[in-house]
Amino acid sequence: MRMVDLIEKKRDGKALSTEEIQFIIKGFTDGTIPDYQMSAWSMAVYFKGMNEQERADLTMAMVESGDQIDLSMIEGIKVDKHSTGGVGDTTTLVLGPLVAAVGVPVAKMSGRGLGHTGGTIDKLESVAGFHVEIENDEFIRLVNKNKIAVIGQSGNLTPADKKLYALRDVTATVNSIGLIAGSIMSKKIAAGADAIVLDVKTGAGAFMKTLADSEELAHAMVSIGNNVGRNTMAVISDMSQPLGYAIGNALEVKEAIDTLKGEGPEDLTELSLTLGSHMVYLAKKADSLKEARTLLENAIKDGSALNSFKIFLEAQGGDGSVVDHPEKLPQAAYTFELEAKEDGYVSEIIADEVGTAAMLLGAGRATKESEIDLAVGLVLRKKIGETVAKGESLVTIYSNFEDVSKVKEKLYESIAVSKAKVEKPTLIYKEIME
Amino acid sequence: MRMVDLIEKKRDGKALSTEEIQFIIKGFTDGTIPDYQMSAWSMAVYFKGMNEQERADLTMAMVESGDQIDLSMIEGIKVDKHSTGGVGDTTTLVLGPLVAAVGVPVAKMSGRGLGHTGGTIDKLESVAGFHVEIENDEFIRLVNKNKIAVIGQSGNLTPADKKLYALRDVTATVNSIGLIAGSIMSKKIAAGADAIVLDVKTGAGAFMKTLADSEELAHAMVSIGNNVGRNTMAVISDMSQPLGYAIGNALEVKEAIDTLKGEGPEDLTELSLTLGSHMVYLAKKADSLKEARTLLENAIKDGSALNSFKIFLEAQGGDGSVVDHPEKLPQAAYTFELEAKEDGYVSEIIADEVGTAAMLLGAGRATKESEIDLAVGLVLRKKIGETVAKGESLVTIYSNFEDVSKVKEKLYESIAVSKAKVEKPTLIYKEIME
Repeated sequence: MRMVDLIEKKRDGKALSTEEIQFIIKGFTDGTIPDYQMSAWSMAVYFKGMNEQERADLTMAMVESGDQIDLSMIEGIKVDKHSTGGVGDTTTLVLGPLVAAVGVPVAKMSGRGLGHTGGTIDKLESVAGFHVEIENDEFIRLVNKNKIAVIGQSGNLTPADKKLYALRDVTATVNSIGLIAGSIMSKKIAAGADAIVLDVKTGAGAFMKTLADSEELAHAMVSIGNNVGRNTMAVISDMSQPLGYAIGNALEVKEAIDTLKGEGPEDLTELSLTLGSHMVYLAKKADSLKEARTLLENAIKDGSALNSFKIFLEAQGGDGSVVDHPEKLPQAAYTFELEAKEDGYVSEIIADEVGTAAMLLGAGRATKESEIDLAVGLVLRKKIGETVAKGESLVTIYSNFEDVSKVKEKLYESIAVSKAKVEKPTLIYKEIME
Repeated sequence: MRMVDLIEKKRDGKALSTEEIQFIIKGFTDGTIPDYQMSAWSMAVYFKGMNEQERADLTMAMVESGDQIDLSMIEGIKVDKHSTGGVGDTTTLVLGPLVAAVGVPVAKMSGRGLGHTGGTIDKLESVAGFHVEIENDEFIRLVNKNKIAVIGQSGNLTPADKKLYALRDVTATVNSIGLIAGSIMSKKIAAGADAIVLDVKTGAGAFMKTLADSEELAHAMVSIGNNVGRNTMAVISDMSQPLGYAIGNALEVKEAIDTLKGEGPEDLTELSLTLGSHMVYLAKKADSLKEARTLLENAIKDGSALNSFKIFLEAQGGDGSVVDHPEKLPQAAYTFELEAKEDGYVSEIIADEVGTAAMLLGAGRATKESEIDLAVGLVLRKKIGETVAKGESLVTIYSNFEDVSKVKEKLYESIAVSKAKVEKPTLIYKEIME
C-alpha cells in the first residue's frame, strides 16, 4: 500500500477501506507517512468528505493509536458527556453530581486547557483542598462508591488525533466535518465511554456558527458512535449568548451549587436536565426520558444532588462545606457594575466577546503557561429578551485589579440594548438520536 | 502574511495576489514554508485551480527562484521549442538545424533525463566526437556564427519547480493544469527563451490522454507565455502512435538526417514544418506562416538544412560526415523482423508500450545510473492505417543481444492488425495562438 495512491483515491472521491484508513493513521502516528502526505490527504478529505464507514474507521484507528482507558472495573454503563465548547458553560459541574445522585457512574477524565475560563479541573480547584492527582485504583474505587470522581488526564490517549489536529491547524483543514467528528469521538472512546451524550453548541459563540453546520456535526458524531457500538445522542443547544450567568472559575462553581439546589439560572437548569435525562436513559437507570427527568428533578428537590457534589468534593480532599457556604470560595477584591446606558430590551450578548472580557480579568489561559485567577470573572445580570432600565446593572465584574475600563469597554461592545421588544432565544434546537 | 491563511484563501476558491504567490514560492524555496503546508496548498490548487494571472505569477516566481540564463548577447529573437513528451519524437533533432538554416537562432540547453530513449544530448552523442561540454562564451559565439549550438544543463534553474514537482509527485497533486503549465513554462523562460513554440502531444502515448485535456494545457501555457511577455503558441499533435519510424538514439539521428534531406517519414516531416514555421514566424524571419513554411521547404530542397546540421555537429567536435554516411553511426550487432501474423490493416501501435520495448533493448534509462546503448532500438515498418500482409515486417528490431523474444512479445501486445479498413490518425489537431 502506498500513501500517494490513497491520497489520489480520496482526491478522486472514492471511499477508503478499513485497512487503508488503518494504514494511514498507523503510518502517520509512527512517522512512516510524512506530514506533507497527511496534509495533502486532509485537504482531499476537506473537499471530498468521508462516508459513515470511513468516519467510524478513522475514529477507531485514532483510538487504537494510543492508550485506552479501561473502566471495566466500574459497575454500570459509563456515560460520558461532551460539549463542543462555549462560554460560561457550567453544565459539566452540574451534570456530574446530578446524574451520580441517581446512580449513573461518572468517571470523568478532565483537563485544564486554554480558553476564556479554566477547564473543569481548574474550576473544581476553586474548592480548597480539592485535587485530581489520584491513583487509577482510587479513582475506580471512588466511582464505584460515590458514582462520581474526576481524574487528571494521563496516558498517551489518541496521539494520532493530537498530531493530526496540530497539522490541520496549520494547513487550513480544520473545518472538515468528518475530521472534527472523528477527533472528538476518538477522545471520548479512548477515555473509556460506553455511551456518549453530546452537547453541540450553535451560534455566534460556538465553533459551529450555523444551525445547519451544528446539525451536520451532530449527525456525524452520533453516526460514528452508533457505528462503533457506543450508544450516542446529541443535543443542539444555543450559544448565541453565554449559558447561565457566571463566567469565571469560582463563580461557575457557585452557580453549579445554586443549580444543584434548584436555584440556578433557567437555561443552565433546563439544559442540565435535558442532557442529564439522556445520560440516565443511556445508562439504563430509567425506561424513558420522562422517567429519567423526574428522577433528576427529585434529586434536586430532595437535596441528594447537592449532597452528591459535597461527597465528591470531600472524597478528593476538597472542603465540602462550600456547598452550604459558597462564600468560602475564592473572592475577588473588587466588584463593579456595568450600567445600562439606556432603557430597552437586551438584544445581543456576543458570547465569545464576553468570554474575552473574562480573559482580560485573568479568568482564562491564553497560553499553557498562563496563571489563572480563580476568583475573578463576570456574572450577567440580564440575558437576551429581558428588559433593562438606564443605570441598571447588565453585568457584575469580579476583579482583582481596580481599573476595569478595558473590560467595561469590551462588554459595552458585546452587549446591545434595543428599543424594540426582543424574544428570548431558543435554548434547545434539536435532540438527535441517529 | 501567513501561509495557513493563503492555503485557506485558495481552498475557498479565491484568487491569490502577485505578492501572495511570490511569498509562497520564495518561502517554499528557502524552507520557511514547510512541505506539509505546500502540499496542502497544492491540493487546494488541484481542486480550485488558478486564474490566468495566478498562473503567470506562479511561473515568474519559479523563474526568479533560481538562475536565469542570459541570452542577450545572441542576435535575434530566441525561439525555444518544447514538447510535452512522447515516443520516437525526433522533431528536436530536425527542427534545430532546419530553422537555423533560415536564420533563427537556436540556443538549446538540453538534458539527458529518463525515458524510452535518451535525451537530445544522448542522441547527438551517437555522432563520434560530438560533445556539449562547452563554455558559455563559446556557446554564445557558436549560436551567433552558426545560428545553432547545444549546451548541457548547468546552473540552478527553477529550484522552486524542482522542489514542488518532487512534492507533487508523492502527494497526488501532479495533475493540475495550472501547476503543470507553470512548471513547463518556468523552465523555458529561465533558460532564456524570448518566444516559445509548444508541441502538446495527445493520445495514448502522451501525458495528456484526451484532446480536451491537451487543449486545456495548451491554452494554459500559451496564456502564461503571452501574459509574461513571451510570444507563445502551441500545436496539438498526435501521440496515439509513435512519431516517425525510429525509436532509439542513433536510429533517430539517422531519421533526422533523412528528414533534413527531404526523405523522412511523412508525419515527422509535416510536424517539423508546422512547428518550424511557427518558430520562424515568431522569430520574425518571415511575415506569414506561409512564407515561413516556404523558406523551410526550400532549405530542405537546396541542402542548406542538412548542411546546417553538419556545421553544427562539427562545431561541437562531431564527425559531420555522418550526414552523408549515416552508416558511421553506432550499429547494432543484430537485426530481427517482427512479422505480421495475419493480413490486414494496422489498427493500433500503442506508443508507450512500443517505447517500453525499446527500453528492453537498452535504448533508454530507467534510473539516472542506467547505461544507454546508443545503437539499439526499433524502426516501425508500418504505421496505423497501412496494409500489411502475413509474414511482412511490422518492425525492425536493432539489438546487441540475440534473444529478443521478450521484446517481440511486448511488440505483438502493442501492435494490432484488423481485417476492417482503418483510417490514418489525424497528425495535427489544433494550432493555438491564444
